[in-house]
This record gives sequence, C-alpha cells and structure tokens, in this order.
Amino acid sequence: MQLRVPGPTPIPDDVLKAMSKQMIDHRGPEFVELFRSVTASLKEFFQTKGDVLILTASGTGGMEAAIVNTLSPGDKVLAVSVGAFGDRFADIAKQYGAQVTKLDFEWGLPADPQAVRKALSQDPGIKAVLVTHNETSTGLTNDLASISSVVREFDKLLIVDAISSLGSIDLPTDAWGCDVVVTGSQKGWMVPPGLTMLSVSEKAWKANAQAKMPRYYLDFGRAKRFLEERGQTPWTPAVSIVYGLGVALEKLRKEGLPNIVARHARVGNKARAEVKALGLSLFPPESYASNTVTAIKAPDGLDVKGLRKVLREKHSVVIAGGQGKLEGKVFRIGHLGYVSEADMVEVGAALKAALPLAGYAKVK
Amino acid sequence: MQLRVPGPTPIPDDVLKAMSKQMIDHRGPEFVELFRSVTASLKEFFQTKGDVLILTASGTGGMEAAIVNTLSPGDKVLAVSVGAFGDRFADIAKQYGAQVTKLDFEWGLPADPQAVRKALSQDPGIKAVLVTHNETSTGLTNDLASISSVVREFDKLLIVDAISSLGSIDLPTDAWGCDVVVTGSQKGWMVPPGLTMLSVSEKAWKANAQAKMPRYYLDFGRAKRFLEERGQTPWTPAVSIVYGLGVALEKLRKEGLPNIVARHARVGNKARAEVKALGLSLFPPESYASNTVTAIKAPDGLDVKGLRKVLREKHSVVIAGGQGKLEGKVFRIGHLGYVSEADMVEVGAALKAALPLAGYAKVK
Repeated sequence: MQLRVPGPTPIPDDVLKAMSKQMIDHRGPEFVELFRSVTASLKEFFQTKGDVLILTASGTGGMEAAIVNTLSPGDKVLAVSVGAFGDRFADIAKQYGAQVTKLDFEWGLPADPQAVRKALSQDPGIKAVLVTHNETSTGLTNDLASISSVVREFDKLLIVDAISSLGSIDLPTDAWGCDVVVTGSQKGWMVPPGLTMLSVSEKAWKANAQAKMPRYYLDFGRAKRFLEERGQTPWTPAVSIVYGLGVALEKLRKEGLPNIVARHARVGNKARAEVKALGLSLFPPESYASNTVTAIKAPDGLDVKGLRKVLREKHSVVIAGGQGKLEGKVFRIGHLGYVSEADMVEVGAALKAALPLAGYAKVK
Repeated sequence: MQLRVPGPTPIPDDVLKAMSKQMIDHRGPEFVELFRSVTASLKEFFQTKGDVLILTASGTGGMEAAIVNTLSPGDKVLAVSVGAFGDRFADIAKQYGAQVTKLDFEWGLPADPQAVRKALSQDPGIKAVLVTHNETSTGLTNDLASISSVVREFDKLLIVDAISSLGSIDLPTDAWGCDVVVTGSQKGWMVPPGLTMLSVSEKAWKANAQAKMPRYYLDFGRAKRFLEERGQTPWTPAVSIVYGLGVALEKLRKEGLPNIVARHARVGNKARAEVKALGLSLFPPESYASNTVTAIKAPDGLDVKGLRKVLREKHSVVIAGGQGKLEGKVFRIGHLGYVSEADMVEVGAALKAALPLAGYAKVK
C-alpha cells in the first residue's frame, strides 16, 4: 500500500511496534522520563530555545490553542490565507471573537510579503499575524522567511501553522522570530495522528499573560506548569502516541534535520518530475511548490474521484482529492515523513496506468 | 506489571496489536466503515438512541466539549461536586463565562439528591446541572438515578461526567434522561488514552442551537455533520486509537454490558474485601464505594509516596495516590476495564507486604 495523502503518513515498523506497548502510569517515573526526552528532542526540530508543548489533539486543536492562548476577544488579527487551512486559521480566530482582517491570495498563489507589509502599515492596531507555512490544500510553501521578516519589522505576534512542514521543510523558529509554531504528529513526524506540538516564544508568553480568550483543555499555562514541575501533562495524554513519537524522533535525529530537509526536497522534485513527465501541470507556481505535498491540476476530462478509485483498487496507491472549492479540480500526492524518491516513481507509474481509465487519455 | 491506577488501564493483547496497524486514509472507505461501526457499537454501551460523537482529546477535553456546546456565557449552572473532578467541571464552566452555583459535598461523601432539589427550587433560572457519576478522586459513585430524577422534575439540562464509569457501571443514558454523557477511551474501554466519547440528546441539540460559548475544535455540530454525511470526523482523528476501540468494543459486546457491570461489581467487592482484611478503611461510605476505583484512607504513620514506591519497585504494582487536597491522605486502586477478581487478590497480597515497609506496621 502506498498511502500518499498528506497525513496520516506511513509509519515505520519500529514506530508501529512502539504503538502497541502496554500502558504505564502517565504520572509515574517511566512516562516522565520519556515525556521530558521527547520534549527536549522536539526543541531541536523546532530550532528553538523556547518552550515546546505537546497537547493531545489534532492539528486543528493546535491551531485553536495557538490563538486562544495568545489573544483576547476584540484583538485585531491579520489572517494571511492562501487556501483552506489559511481560511480555517481565520475562522478559528473569528469564532473566539478576534477582529480578523483577512488578507486573501488566490488559491494556488503564494502570500506576497509586500502585501503583508501594506496591510500592517494600514492598521497599526493589528496585534498578531496568522500565517500558513505550508498550505496543504494547494500544495504550496509560503516564503515564511520574507513574511516573518516583515512581521518582525512591525513587532507583531507571529503565529504559524506549520502542521505539514515542520520537521520536513526548514523552519528555524527562533531565527525567523516565530512566536507560536504548530505541527501535528501525523505529518512529517512519522507517527499516527493524535498529538499536536507547539513552540511558544517569550513574546508569546507575554501575550499569554494578557490573553483573555477562554480556554481550559488547551491551556498553555497549565501545560507548561505540569511539564516544568513534574514532566507531565495536566490531563491524561495519548500515551501510545508519545511512545511512537519517542521512537520516531530517535530515527529522525539519526538522520539529522538538514538531511531530512534535503530528502524532502529531493522527493518533492521527483514527485514534480513524475507528474510533469505525464504531461500534467502543477497547481501552484513551481518555485513555490511544496516539498511535502504536490497538488496537480486536474486536466480536462479527468474524473478525480474515478482516478483515486482506480489508484486505490488497482494499484494500492491512495492519494488525496481537492479540498473545499478545489474538489474535482486538483488531486494531491502527499510525500512527507517516511518517504523516498522510489515511492514517487511507484506513484508515477501507477498514475500513468490509471489516468486513461479515469477519462484522461492524453498521458505522455 | 499490575497497572492499577484509575486510567490509563491495562490493554488486552489483541487491542494492543490493533494499535500497531499501519495508517490508512481517514477519508477513505475502510476508515469510514470502521468509524460508523464503532459509533453504532458505542450507542449500545451508552444505552442511548441519541447521537454519540467521538473526539480526539482526553476526558477533560470531553468535559469542556459538553459545556461549550450546550451553554452560553452568563447561563446559570448548578455544579454538583463531590471531589476533584466535580471541581474541574465547575472550573471549566466558569472559565467559559457560566454563572456557576457550586453545590459542594464533603470529599468522601456522596451528593444528596434532596440538596440538588433544594438548589434547583431556590433558583429557577438555572439552566443546566453538572454532575459527576463516578468521582475518581474519592472512589465514590453518586446515586445518579435519584439525582437525574430530580433534575428531570425541573426539566434542566443534565450534563454527566461518566469518564470513569460508563461501560463499567450501569448508566442508562436515555432512561435516566442524561443530556450529555462524557467518557474517555483509557477507562473501562480497555483502550489507550486519546479519545473522548459523548452522547448528545435531542434536548442537548436544542440547547446547542442556542449555545454561544465559543468553540471550534470541539464543536458538536461539525462532528455530527461529518459523521452523518460522510462517516468521518471534521479533523484528522487518532486513527490508531479508533483501531483499538474497534477491537475492544467487539470484546466488550461479546461479554455483554450486564455481565461487564456484574464483573465490575464483583471486582469492586473483592478490592474492598482485600483492603478491609488488612485492617484499612475505605474513604467513602461503603454503600457509595465505586466499582471502578477504591479509595483507601491512609492510616496514621503511612507514607503514601513510600507505599507506592515499594509497590512499584518490589511488586510491580502501580497504584495512585490522593489527588489535590487528598494528597498523602488517601491512596487509590483502579479496577476498571481489563480486570478480574484475581488481580485484586494480587494487589491485596502486595499491599500486605508493602504496608509495613511504608510506615504502617499494624497490618492484619
């Protein structure tokens, strides 16, 4: 089976094995040792000397946590959106009473740092900027280095959805001045879904001290206090997934972050080369194409649902369709975490065989 | 290893094995089939014809979900508390802006249904009642049949924390008119932590339509819509734990709910008999003692921390200490889920050997 959706991603055998370990007391010494070591290791991958918190929730829970722990109802927020996940970030902030100014870019195009500068100049009252590092719905990686540099000029809080990039695409949290960075276990981390991991800068903690959005389960303060005082979580954590994360992080440390990032770049290149060789077009401009997920324009005549069905049933290859308004218009290949260039060759071969059966005869 | 904390609980081998299954697409047909079947099976254990939702979160996340999905800031809530988890329920409601009237009972004593009646009579403005079915911190099961009957007289919304009781102690959700009932995967369900499961009555849905507390990740409406329309969750669920829950529910269905409840009653009796035979006293009155967790008064001279250390290191028995203000004053034996009377005999023998080493010489 080639599971090629952009999360959950395939899990290596030793990580799967760790998932089946018997339960232990989440307040006992064995768990405390594991939890402290996993947290320390994550800090390296976040490239931060700040805090890293692990919460039991999906990535969307992490996005919510990032917002409710740093903002108050009525706070002005600039939400930079290039797709479905950027829209989701804005929606969460609205839901909790933030005054959201939406800076929308056409789906498939990247966020323009100059437009961010203009928006921040026009409204000095803006307190925080929400931005997606890697937009999974459009297969695009924003130029976060440039965007973060603009946000730093204005000294705003920078909250980053890096769910499908962190640990796979370079994101130096401290060097770029990112105040909260969110990721999820089922992406590049090679672990099943259920945990969200977040970095919290000094500036984010200062914002936290004033933040009045209601929160309890996802509260950063409680998580930090339990972590520092006891090496524990305030509520019972998803112990098995922490086991899995422990093993996965050891593997990732052995490979080394620069090598992992380079591998994702090679795999991303290979994915793009395979689809272009079939005569297909990428959805985003190639210079912004993501190294963790490739979004491909559905050519005229192609039935995306049919394509996914043929791939799944005849080739054991599972890919994703389009999300939201891109349904039927794009299809997506996930290539993050436990993945190699050879996997992309297999996917390319399966696509070549499946496309004509799904209405697209002009395969090269 | 005898893991005898009141959650996480020991996991049967076949459930552990399911935890190590490779990932699949959470939007694909295989997951949809599993998720629908798990949801249908849970309804039997909740004894409800209403909705059951599965969210990726700890039990505390479930408690928060129960509140924020049914109430608005300013709503008057009666929070019946007999211990740490009753207090937590009240705290969550306050955090989200409810006007909470606290009805506190001394820790170790049950909630008095007549006191609930009096409180509801005194303030007709109360909209909802929060109550703990099984209070894990004091090892006590409230008389929810009587309490729910009072709440029905007044036609209030009844929100029940049944995290450590549902599926182990009888709780006929519909028959008792419980509007939201919350449980967690790591309790009687014999599954690792990471999922919270909730029932939602028609009346709770009516309340939901008016409820203005902010929510996104834990939103019932989105969960129901995705479940009904697609057999999916709005956000990536903890797939492995759903695998585990699928296998565990099959086992539980084979045993049958009445047999499971009877087994927990026998095991609870055995646990109480063992500790009384050692000359120890139960913390709650025996007629209210829980069948899922036994709380024992620490006798004079006993060092609870020391006892737990000796049990863990010399006998491979892991028990829990006291929570909050009961730290050092009680210790607790969890006996829910994958547990038999023989386990309690082992725990009793270990206690007999360990107590004198932890400062309590008068063991019978």
